[in-house]
Amino acid sequence: MTDRSEDNASGTPLTRAGRSRRDALKLGGAATLGAILGGSALLAHTTPALAQAGSKGELAPNEPLNILIVNYDGGTLLDFAGPSEIFHRLPNTNVRYASLDGGNVTLEFGVVYGKTERLADIEKTDVLLVPGGSDLTAPMRPAYQAQIRRLAESARHVTSVCNGSLVLAATGVLKGKRSACHWAFVNKLAEYGAIPVPDRFVEDDNGRFMSGGGVTAGIDFALRVAEKLRGRQAAEFTQLVIEYDPAPPFHSGHPRDARPEVVAMVDKELPGASRGLARIPGVR
Amino acid sequence: MTDRSEDNASGTPLTRAGRSRRDALKLGGAATLGAILGGSALLAHTTPALAQAGSKGELAPNEPLNILIVNYDGGTLLDFAGPSEIFHRLPNTNVRYASLDGGNVTLEFGVVYGKTERLADIEKTDVLLVPGGSDLTAPMRPAYQAQIRRLAESARHVTSVCNGSLVLAATGVLKGKRSACHWAFVNKLAEYGAIPVPDRFVEDDNGRFMSGGGVTAGIDFALRVAEKLRGRQAAEFTQLVIEYDPAPPFHSGHPRDARPEVVAMVDKELPGASRGLARIPGVR
Repeated sequence: MTDRSEDNASGTPLTRAGRSRRDALKLGGAATLGAILGGSALLAHTTPALAQAGSKGELAPNEPLNILIVNYDGGTLLDFAGPSEIFHRLPNTNVRYASLDGGNVTLEFGVVYGKTERLADIEKTDVLLVPGGSDLTAPMRPAYQAQIRRLAESARHVTSVCNGSLVLAATGVLKGKRSACHWAFVNKLAEYGAIPVPDRFVEDDNGRFMSGGGVTAGIDFALRVAEKLRGRQAAEFTQLVIEYDPAPPFHSGHPRDARPEVVAMVDKELPGASRGLARIPGVR
Repeated sequence: MTDRSEDNASGTPLTRAGRSRRDALKLGGAATLGAILGGSALLAHTTPALAQAGSKGELAPNEPLNILIVNYDGGTLLDFAGPSEIFHRLPNTNVRYASLDGGNVTLEFGVVYGKTERLADIEKTDVLLVPGGSDLTAPMRPAYQAQIRRLAESARHVTSVCNGSLVLAATGVLKGKRSACHWAFVNKLAEYGAIPVPDRFVEDDNGRFMSGGGVTAGIDFALRVAEKLRGRQAAEFTQLVIEYDPAPPFHSGHPRDARPEVVAMVDKELPGASRGLARIPGVR
């Protein structure tokens, strides 16, 4: 079952990888993690046949691509840290971060995320991503909403993770569109005219709208977006580099699986959660 | 199969959660996401029977707990964003971030993480977490190593995610200890006298040492650490809140599953990766 070839110096088996390594291309040049992580070399591996474009204008697989992540005070780090980690590794892709005023934002738990650009300074973006948060007061304000609406209207792909979809929906751009959301808030989408879908990944209009469920769903979401934007091989490459081979220790990631007493703990703190109607600051 | 009770206003089925909701405690008071996320109310749900302490000194389930995350230039955001998101939600737990000089650190891809404390200003911590990065030059420097060694020696739990274990191993504290690491680097642990274990979560000395595999393994790692520190119910609650119900779109998260051509792409950029012996700046 294991393959302890003599050139596996430590003797730690890597099974199929150890075998496939012998068949891998022999390469010169020093390893530069920056290159792999920046995705520059990946470009050569991405073939047109693998790449798929969204419905709004064709996107050639190597065409430069801009992804904008909207930040705001009260946002949740992991909502965008997963997508960020994946998108930065795609070929010829530029990931930017912006907030209303630019500079540092103070996320949930006081985590400081720095050096964001000003939303008003960004003319347009190919992909707009609105992550969620524990307090949506900031991005629900009219000035924030106007910037998000403006960028969404010209973006090829309008996306969200977690309850970031409520922020998008409040701008009106999701009217009649199917969207995901964190399970505790998903049904509030209907209050803004969007169609709540309690799935981990949802798309509408052939990928113009893509959304992920709560927090960690951002990773699954981003791999699907990566496939859509840069092809399956690029997405698989990224999954391998970030070792996304999940093994949750408990069956507690969704109300359908969690023990009733654990769901009750969430309902106690967030009344309405298990109906997808929990309240959150900033949302009516 | 679904349960469309009349009080599920939107009609979107939530199956078991929708049913269990009816049995949930009826509660007064407004929903405060801050309270649930800060974990303060979770305290009441954590029973002594569920909590488990590490081997080095007993830790009562409600005893205040300090977790320190070591930051450095070149670190990888998602290595610690998963654990951070989980640890902040545990009851009576204080999560801190520190770097050698304090202030902002510039992570991989130029991501700025702000307001870290100075390592020298931290007398001790219950849990020390060293995340990995794409460039380990900074934390491999003697001054950084000295701070990490000092804090590790007095910590109850010495932990790492991804190739952060190489940083820990270089201090000498992992000599003869089993440890995880990102699959591409795991066998380099042996060069520092640690025992490489190619698993997603590894513990030694009854939990004094705990480590996760590459990048996203930090989430599975942190849920196991959460169980160890604060009991299973607290860990399950956290998993539910961050909706950790993974559904990777591809089987490409580990060399044992990935397509050989995708593994070859990584080997091309990081020679030695599939033998667990890829090189990284800062590591001999």
